[in-house]
Amino acid sequence: MKWSHWLPCLDWGRRYDRSSAAQDGLAALIVTLMLIPQSLAYAMLAGLPPVAGLYASILPLLAYALFGSSRTLAVGPVAVVSLMTAASLAPLFPAGSPEYVGAAMLLALLSGVLLTAMAMLRLGFIANFLSHPVVSGFISASGILIAVGQLKHLFGVSASGENLPQLLPQLIQALPGTHGPTLLIGVFSLAWLWWARTRLKPLLQRLGLSAPLASNLAKAGPIMAIIAAIAAVALLQLEQAGVRVVGVVPQGLPGLTLPTLDLDLAVQLLPAALLISLVGFVESVSVGQTLAAKRRQRIQPDNELLGLGAANIAASFSGGFPVTGGFARSVVNHDAGAQTPMAGVFTAVGIALSLVLLTPLLHDLPQAVLAATIIVAVLSLVDLKSLRHTWRYSRQDGAAQLATLLGVLLIGVETGILLGVGLSLLLFLWRTSRPHIAVVGQVPGSEHFRNVERFAVIESPSVLSLRVDESLYFPNARYLEERVGELVAARPRVRHLVLMCSGVNLIDASALDSLQAIVERLRTAGVQLHLSEVKGPVMDQLRRSDFLQTFGGQVFISQFEALKHLAPALSSQPLSMQGKPHEKRS
Amino acid sequence: MKWSHWLPCLDWGRRYDRSSAAQDGLAALIVTLMLIPQSLAYAMLAGLPPVAGLYASILPLLAYALFGSSRTLAVGPVAVVSLMTAASLAPLFPAGSPEYVGAAMLLALLSGVLLTAMAMLRLGFIANFLSHPVVSGFISASGILIAVGQLKHLFGVSASGENLPQLLPQLIQALPGTHGPTLLIGVFSLAWLWWARTRLKPLLQRLGLSAPLASNLAKAGPIMAIIAAIAAVALLQLEQAGVRVVGVVPQGLPGLTLPTLDLDLAVQLLPAALLISLVGFVESVSVGQTLAAKRRQRIQPDNELLGLGAANIAASFSGGFPVTGGFARSVVNHDAGAQTPMAGVFTAVGIALSLVLLTPLLHDLPQAVLAATIIVAVLSLVDLKSLRHTWRYSRQDGAAQLATLLGVLLIGVETGILLGVGLSLLLFLWRTSRPHIAVVGQVPGSEHFRNVERFAVIESPSVLSLRVDESLYFPNARYLEERVGELVAARPRVRHLVLMCSGVNLIDASALDSLQAIVERLRTAGVQLHLSEVKGPVMDQLRRSDFLQTFGGQVFISQFEALKHLAPALSSQPLSMQGKPHEKRS
Repeated sequence: MKWSHWLPCLDWGRRYDRSSAAQDGLAALIVTLMLIPQSLAYAMLAGLPPVAGLYASILPLLAYALFGSSRTLAVGPVAVVSLMTAASLAPLFPAGSPEYVGAAMLLALLSGVLLTAMAMLRLGFIANFLSHPVVSGFISASGILIAVGQLKHLFGVSASGENLPQLLPQLIQALPGTHGPTLLIGVFSLAWLWWARTRLKPLLQRLGLSAPLASNLAKAGPIMAIIAAIAAVALLQLEQAGVRVVGVVPQGLPGLTLPTLDLDLAVQLLPAALLISLVGFVESVSVGQTLAAKRRQRIQPDNELLGLGAANIAASFSGGFPVTGGFARSVVNHDAGAQTPMAGVFTAVGIALSLVLLTPLLHDLPQAVLAATIIVAVLSLVDLKSLRHTWRYSRQDGAAQLATLLGVLLIGVETGILLGVGLSLLLFLWRTSRPHIAVVGQVPGSEHFRNVERFAVIESPSVLSLRVDESLYFPNARYLEERVGELVAARPRVRHLVLMCSGVNLIDASALDSLQAIVERLRTAGVQLHLSEVKGPVMDQLRRSDFLQTFGGQVFISQFEALKHLAPALSSQPLSMQGKPHEKRS
Repeated sequence: MKWSHWLPCLDWGRRYDRSSAAQDGLAALIVTLMLIPQSLAYAMLAGLPPVAGLYASILPLLAYALFGSSRTLAVGPVAVVSLMTAASLAPLFPAGSPEYVGAAMLLALLSGVLLTAMAMLRLGFIANFLSHPVVSGFISASGILIAVGQLKHLFGVSASGENLPQLLPQLIQALPGTHGPTLLIGVFSLAWLWWARTRLKPLLQRLGLSAPLASNLAKAGPIMAIIAAIAAVALLQLEQAGVRVVGVVPQGLPGLTLPTLDLDLAVQLLPAALLISLVGFVESVSVGQTLAAKRRQRIQPDNELLGLGAANIAASFSGGFPVTGGFARSVVNHDAGAQTPMAGVFTAVGIALSLVLLTPLLHDLPQAVLAATIIVAVLSLVDLKSLRHTWRYSRQDGAAQLATLLGVLLIGVETGILLGVGLSLLLFLWRTSRPHIAVVGQVPGSEHFRNVERFAVIESPSVLSLRVDESLYFPNARYLEERVGELVAARPRVRHLVLMCSGVNLIDASALDSLQAIVERLRTAGVQLHLSEVKGPVMDQLRRSDFLQTFGGQVFISQFEALKHLAPALSSQPLSMQGKPHEKRS
């Protein structure tokens, strides 16, 4: 294992030139303009002071640039992870309190350590627990939950809760106290952002701008909203009129601090940190893979784990909160021509400069504008049509998706995702617990054996031939015992059972125990077990137990050999019985 | 679905005759003699008054006889389930208190309802979560934990704890306070029971008794120990000397009572009830299957769930605690010639008679004798050799078994089993998350395609042929994306990718999403995906999505057809290149 395996930056860094720098610089400029409002907004969503979003957009980007393998992934605060942060911290501390801020840093540290450990121990496969329907249901439900949760900022009222049954009644009760000017700002921002998202670019093009320039300028829609809103608040003295604003934002770069290392709190936050890590990783990798494929590049899941782990550890040391690769931002970065993670470094510099120069201006930024930014961003995540597609494709997957969706909306983000994971594991067990086990017979005049229910084949009355179309392992070990018991109980004349293992890629310890139990039970009933067509690796593994010495039967190279040996009369049948098998079903 | 499906007793009841009754009666007598000391002892193990064990050995046996499908399973209190009962209740209430007794009844009710629900909803496959190595590690560790926990009764001291790190120090500290007479009784009982278990039968045979009679008499070893101990305590006035005895046992049958329906407590006990149900079911079914196979009978897992569910509900209404089918007792019942569950009914009558007639005699029974009974019974469950076998056979299964074993011993029964289940799921995911995906090429002059790394085959530079030897589903969906990305990135000249699906039995929604993502990514890289040799059921399912319309490629009947169409030059190669493929490895 070479050092450079863990430092992809050594690879692209060696060949870095002025042309790449120019392209990365332009992409970074556009991403910075997009990231400023987003990072402020997602910090607010996470229940943190807005400046924490900027803090989380400097060092994490540098850390990812060192260790990450995607050329164009843009790391930073993202909506879903911010929601999960809020969901795990809100029950513990008042939002925005120093304890809350410290706990968010601790959460980022835990998440970073978990991701790094997963990278070192090559445990990235754990993310497979999150099946696509579960992730899809989770993202859609999170989007709805976030959007509903932000409505309070739009109306200038108070409401809180970790699910719709808590949020909606509070919101409805609070509506009579709606603050007019706030609502006006909110609705205007929402309308502008919604319009700018799709219509700004064509308009700019009609005004004579080139397509790339129009596209890049259109990305600045949110920052324009922010500038306009700040100007309006300052000129019309709206803060005095009761419009809630961001307030004093500390100027300058974040200090390097250790998060509070409270062990009890760490243990309490660990499950949430694991979920945040997995969800963040899954999202980030799928964005990274999509973008890498466009240029026939590759990303390495282990490097992604390490990159995201380093980013989160960096976030925890600089006043941030959990981060990951964001979808929209990465696409913008890629489309704007970013060539290497140096674009991320330039973006970090851009955010750092804003922290030093622009923070006094952010004082008058209305929270309603940030809420509008969040709502427009997350509603694009909501994809309820996919539920219908999944359900039509597979009832089991549809059920897992629906359970996750409803669980997140009605109970909460963590319970919802655990519900979905649990259900998909259950349904998976159910689906694989009853593999196809066919009684096979000999195709007359050939050495082939086929399912007796589908083909006109010859069965020996004393030799039962079974073909198992699946690896033998714990989800189906017990079923194998049951099926063999049933089949033998129904055939009193049977003296030999030959298990045809052509489809068996693995026999785990549970299945080995089951085979041993089957041998014992068959023996007391006067039947001997044999195996045929056992694959090489499976045979190697069986040799590591004493099964082959003790089971008393033989291992035949083929089912035909088995029958030739165990029922010699059958295989030498007269030619008149031969013929092409009639296929009952394809 | 016929009524009789759920009432197997209708089946055997119709043909019940005097000869069966005689055989069942004899078996019941022997089982009753074995069950009296065991039920008292296991109630003590569960932290309940000993009489609760007798209560749990009447109605549950009748309920199982109605609904169970095993002819010879002997239901009642068993060691492992009693330990789990104690482990789940001890943190909540003082052992033996009325609240504790009520909670034990509630636990039995919950377990019964869960088992019944699993029967009705056909959810028995959930027991597959408990792989054999996990169950084996759990049983061995429970045996050790139970034996160590009973030592206090042998020494006449106090010690408690739910794992070895809690138990051992207390026990060692308490040893100086050992009560001499108690230890004497305990050691004598232990020695007698240990000797009687293997040596009594041969001795009785040498004394001229017939083998069956000697065998049956030998089963009465524990009851002889009890009688002798009661006599010794009464004659030598050992209770006054400080030997702890069972004390006043209420005479007569248990009243039918409802367990306290405390909803909060029920929610708290639910996870424990689920584990108890699953462990009890797994144990019971494996005993039942073994015994049924000996006579070429069958058991139905659904009926077993219902039978055990009914038994536990009956236990909860009659002052009992969770029960299941016991291994040793069922084997004795079977070997003694029991023909039908009527033997269980007779056993219940025997226990009821003892409750009416014998309870005054039980007052002087020393707890040390019951502890000795438990120790001898559970040490036969401990099988540490199996750990070595499992480890040698498969590192993954061995790790799961070891984790369960250590988890139970060092942390506790529930945590231990959850650790084992979690680890076996993790290792399973790990094992299946990287299926065998081979690049295949055409065997010269044939229509066959084989792994390019094992055979001398011809590859097309523009068409990449991949064979996936596994169903495509969520544990490996992401890996498929990665592998395809890697392989295509390494072959810049490739324009078509044909996925050969001969080994694919299922494509779930996660894999469908992955395929769609692969199509998108390949498209941006100028490569088109195609499928070949898709099985009928998989094709049917794909038709329920719009994948086949949108993916832009073709579905070929065979890999050869695909190549013929996509790279016509290759398949019409000159004959000189043909030949039998050299097999590099079998």
